[in-house]
Amino acid sequence: MPNPTAAILIIGDEILSGRTRDANMYHLAGELTRVGIDLREVRVVPDDHDAIVAALNALRATHDHVFTSGGIGPTHDDITADAVAAAFGVGIDVRGDARGILEALFARKGIELTETQLRMARIPDGATLIVNDVSGAPGFSIGNVHVMAGVPGIFRAMVAVLLPTLRGGTPRVSRERRIEIGEGRIAPQLAAIAAEFPGVSVGSYPFSENGVHGTNVVVRGTDSLAVEAALSRLDEQFPLSAS
Amino acid sequence: MPNPTAAILIIGDEILSGRTRDANMYHLAGELTRVGIDLREVRVVPDDHDAIVAALNALRATHDHVFTSGGIGPTHDDITADAVAAAFGVGIDVRGDARGILEALFARKGIELTETQLRMARIPDGATLIVNDVSGAPGFSIGNVHVMAGVPGIFRAMVAVLLPTLRGGTPRVSRERRIEIGEGRIAPQLAAIAAEFPGVSVGSYPFSENGVHGTNVVVRGTDSLAVEAALSRLDEQFPLSAS
Repeated sequence: MPNPTAAILIIGDEILSGRTRDANMYHLAGELTRVGIDLREVRVVPDDHDAIVAALNALRATHDHVFTSGGIGPTHDDITADAVAAAFGVGIDVRGDARGILEALFARKGIELTETQLRMARIPDGATLIVNDVSGAPGFSIGNVHVMAGVPGIFRAMVAVLLPTLRGGTPRVSRERRIEIGEGRIAPQLAAIAAEFPGVSVGSYPFSENGVHGTNVVVRGTDSLAVEAALSRLDEQFPLSAS
Repeated sequence: MPNPTAAILIIGDEILSGRTRDANMYHLAGELTRVGIDLREVRVVPDDHDAIVAALNALRATHDHVFTSGGIGPTHDDITADAVAAAFGVGIDVRGDARGILEALFARKGIELTETQLRMARIPDGATLIVNDVSGAPGFSIGNVHVMAGVPGIFRAMVAVLLPTLRGGTPRVSRERRIEIGEGRIAPQLAAIAAEFPGVSVGSYPFSENGVHGTNVVVRGTDSLAVEAALSRLDEQFPLSAS
């Protein structure tokens, strides 16, 4: 069975304006690789209803899972939940279970839950909650779309709760060699290895450090024997690179 | 005249696998904001011909500019230039001016230019070169698509050369206040300010530091007077936050 595929949709003006450097894509990309879900695409869109709906509908039609980040807080610019409901054509309202979670949280803190904060209990019809212990306000899954917070600490907590509930695949094994030869001079050998092991991807990433122009070569695939065989071929070609 | 719009297309398996944390999107997003080009969308796709062509054609049809990062080196996994040519339906081959740049560079270094490295002189018909002094290998612009390297130092050098050649717009002014009150408790005031100043975007980003739950409020817009007026209203509501 092939690995499940996934896309990430990052929602937020602050990423597009360059104010904030994304951390969530990087975190989730690594976690998905670990559990054998193949991340195929990432999109970043602004806090704009139509843009979110269009991206959601494009991505959920073409990937097994879509993970979103951002826009589920209590303020006027938090419009993700409504956009998700619109994309699925379902209603949305404050829901009892989500409200209960917020009420319990605020009671523990000894502060009043306002009408505004109740916005965080607005859940599209048919969704299941993604609880988190960091902020208390839940994310949710509906169909193949998983809606999570943008604040990195909360996003990570939600990912940690969500991922074990999804069917994983065969984790992609990744092995790396640092070769102190410029990319252009080892390209023929890399192409030959890639051709010999078609199920293995051979990536090359040039670096320049202290006057040394070299190449980090990454050999990746779900068949660990094939990855090791390709790595052996690489080490035969460039013996000094074996670590 | 409205600001030009833009999209960024990041090409590379290493971003989607979580091996590499993107730096180029973050850098270019800030630079575009500075010159008044509105970044509306970012996509990340793998080193896959069809995925690159499809994303390029979708983005170049809907934005004034598309900036790409990655996949223009000499190795077998560098397929961006060919994908761009395919997206535009034009031919691609080693071109004299690009070849001349590489030959001069390699002559200066006293090393031989191989057939493989000549791949970096493959330029789609009708494109203009984006020179860079870091690696020597040029990027290129064709139509409204600007094709640049993935290595961050080279990408930055190309952005620095390219951006001054593009028509900019009205830079978006951004002012920020740190308010030590949770987002949920200031949401009504923020919504009122956003409603009073429709040309201004009011973003709120919760933080949690040393036990303080607060909110960074970002007021942005191209009309600096409106931004200052909105900021004044914010400072009236939350006097302690004025810096």
